[in-house]
Amino acid sequence: MTPFKLTEELIVQINELVELRRDSELVGLMGEIHYADVAEIINELNEEEATYLIKLLDSDKTSDVLTELDEDVREGILSNLSAKEIAGELEELDTDDAADIVGELPQEIVQEVISEIEDKEHAKDIVDLLRYDENSAGGLMAKELVKVREGWDVLTCVKEMRAQAENVTRVHSIYVVDDEDHLKGRLSLKDLLTTSTKTHIAQVYIPKVDSVNVNEKPEEVAKIMSKYDLEAIPVVDEIGRLVGRITIDDIVDVIKEEADKDYQMAAGISQDVEADDSIWDLTRARLPWLILGLFGGAGAAVIMGGFEEMFRQYTVLFLFTPLIAAMAGNVGVQSSAIIVQGLANDDIKGSIGNRLIKEMLLALLNGIILACLLLLFTWIWKGNFMTALAISVSLIAVIVVAGFIGTFTPLFLHKRGIDPAIATGPFITTSNDIFGILIYFMIAKMILGI
Amino acid sequence: MTPFKLTEELIVQINELVELRRDSELVGLMGEIHYADVAEIINELNEEEATYLIKLLDSDKTSDVLTELDEDVREGILSNLSAKEIAGELEELDTDDAADIVGELPQEIVQEVISEIEDKEHAKDIVDLLRYDENSAGGLMAKELVKVREGWDVLTCVKEMRAQAENVTRVHSIYVVDDEDHLKGRLSLKDLLTTSTKTHIAQVYIPKVDSVNVNEKPEEVAKIMSKYDLEAIPVVDEIGRLVGRITIDDIVDVIKEEADKDYQMAAGISQDVEADDSIWDLTRARLPWLILGLFGGAGAAVIMGGFEEMFRQYTVLFLFTPLIAAMAGNVGVQSSAIIVQGLANDDIKGSIGNRLIKEMLLALLNGIILACLLLLFTWIWKGNFMTALAISVSLIAVIVVAGFIGTFTPLFLHKRGIDPAIATGPFITTSNDIFGILIYFMIAKMILGI
Repeated sequence: MTPFKLTEELIVQINELVELRRDSELVGLMGEIHYADVAEIINELNEEEATYLIKLLDSDKTSDVLTELDEDVREGILSNLSAKEIAGELEELDTDDAADIVGELPQEIVQEVISEIEDKEHAKDIVDLLRYDENSAGGLMAKELVKVREGWDVLTCVKEMRAQAENVTRVHSIYVVDDEDHLKGRLSLKDLLTTSTKTHIAQVYIPKVDSVNVNEKPEEVAKIMSKYDLEAIPVVDEIGRLVGRITIDDIVDVIKEEADKDYQMAAGISQDVEADDSIWDLTRARLPWLILGLFGGAGAAVIMGGFEEMFRQYTVLFLFTPLIAAMAGNVGVQSSAIIVQGLANDDIKGSIGNRLIKEMLLALLNGIILACLLLLFTWIWKGNFMTALAISVSLIAVIVVAGFIGTFTPLFLHKRGIDPAIATGPFITTSNDIFGILIYFMIAKMILGI
Repeated sequence: MTPFKLTEELIVQINELVELRRDSELVGLMGEIHYADVAEIINELNEEEATYLIKLLDSDKTSDVLTELDEDVREGILSNLSAKEIAGELEELDTDDAADIVGELPQEIVQEVISEIEDKEHAKDIVDLLRYDENSAGGLMAKELVKVREGWDVLTCVKEMRAQAENVTRVHSIYVVDDEDHLKGRLSLKDLLTTSTKTHIAQVYIPKVDSVNVNEKPEEVAKIMSKYDLEAIPVVDEIGRLVGRITIDDIVDVIKEEADKDYQMAAGISQDVEADDSIWDLTRARLPWLILGLFGGAGAAVIMGGFEEMFRQYTVLFLFTPLIAAMAGNVGVQSSAIIVQGLANDDIKGSIGNRLIKEMLLALLNGIILACLLLLFTWIWKGNFMTALAISVSLIAVIVVAGFIGTFTPLFLHKRGIDPAIATGPFITTSNDIFGILIYFMIAKMILGI
């Protein structure tokens, strides 16, 4: 397939067609485009045009388009639709997507929208889903699933499944429950294809099935599903009753969001901004970290001010402060990134003590190599061995301490239940800058006997 | 489910059981543990113990365990197995996983291993897969899939499908091909559940099906599958013949690896190390970036050396160099991270010029706010307005330039076909340190009229 490419020309063409109300051409054009791509197009239109298109197209397409839109665009469009129209879109969606949209609606219209949904079972499922925390397995799951009772024979089962499958976009597994809806096991699709229709459910189902609790965190669900290569996982409540299922496509989104978040944190950007957000949104996400950096820099300036006398005598020491600060920052970021990533992937094992010792040995090794290079450079440049030695030895100490701080901080935060990712980026560079400069001056002072 | 937790006690217990050759207990214990968890256990054992366990357990389990092991552990174990034993493991695996393992074997034993595979069809598929670049759709795909010919009637179709499904772990879609194997469309599983068995394939199949070319890059496949929420995608060769399919679990791994790689790059770590790698491996991944930082720092020192006279007079300027360097670095990393992430998610649209202007406006806004804070601080601290002004105005200029470099570099690299992620982290901080300090001194000099 040639992947869809959003072009300036296409947007202009659509602007014109909307302007001229060429409805049938619009419907024809949009009919050929995947809903995820239609969403990309609509994200680029103004609210009036976007609403026009949504109202024009069939709701079995527009409902999917709505789920893919940027949140602010969707909000704008929905504010122009009647409760009945919104209900019509929700009718077409799986319960998880529908519940997500209802969750974004202004509180005062929710009840009206829900009451306009014709399929009462669907409406009930959506309302059920609304009570779960967005940041939990319950908030991710859908009610659509195929389940059979262990007491049934295969004939009843197949009949029931056909009916249920009508409402389920993708059938992953057939879950087996008892009369109280407790999850007992599963029937695989493969079994379905290869087993004779005369068998009894209780005899053929696989009694082992992975499941997650409704209160489980999305990141944990993601870990379980990707570790065990699951494409869907049933969700059970506190007493083991089957209440929904989560599919891998939702988990792919969770994984991407997690990765984006950690990456942005490491870069000193509060989560959830994109390149196309407004200058104001971007400032709000970035400025706090820069102010933190400013405080750190001011702190470093005050510390250096305390050594002013020394500098009048040994100006050369001054020249290397940016180098020292940069190395402290770099090592700190490297160390913390390794730990944060290891924690995210669950492969940090063993004691904190051992890990700190390893990291400091590593820092020592790197520090010695770097110090040798720096010693050579400074000695040749300035012709003073003792000064060069003082700077280089300080560098080793600075790097070891930076490695320690970079390793310890995220591990400590993690133990305390705080997201270790905040320990990467500006936070670690700023504190390492200050510690680095302080250590540098103290050691240099000692070695030079000032 | 309670997720599996690898404990020290469990490892000790297994060490003992292996030591005492308590085979039946080992088999019993391992039988209860998922293969992905068994792999975690084996990663912690020594080579001899690991090999013992792999030989002891059934190959329908150990084959899956092998695919989940750390590469070096797997290599160690395989070096202790005979060609016949390795073939036995490959026999149990899907062709994609089998081909990945064969790809890691020493060249001299590949032929022997392949010839020991009893299922000749399976062996042929593995050999077919070996010729694809690891970094392409062909390198990711498996040969296992369910396909039917458009000419068949549903009866033939169901019979054929049952036979094919025996070899396919997970049936996602049924692909429809013509007599020359050209991909024509698909039958959904839902159709299968809900359509009467008397229908003709040509009448019921969906003629629209997303597919990717064998040469497509894994990142592109990942983008397509996650954008269109696909759980499997067929792979076609240059003339449209169906040659394999890629499933979402492989794509989840691609997405995680991509995110990990970008994150590590940003932190100044050459890709592909983990917290548990050896000190030597970690040094190799980290040291080059630190050396780059060292060169940058040395460059900054030389530049500052050129302003030494000025500093004797205005020592206070010196005190703020770490602050200036840190701010330049932070802004540069923020800007580049936003661009790198935007490029990865395909939402950087519009011209480079507009983006640069936006970023510089943003930097100007942030710069002015930060400069005001700095002006106040320095004025109060040092009591000299002109110096405080000089430092603060320089800060604005430094931030704007840092924003420009941070935005321009990744965009430029991307245009040139180079991975923009290398522009984040140490590279951008180091160059911004140098530019920042240079700009700082030049502007301060101008304002203070030195």
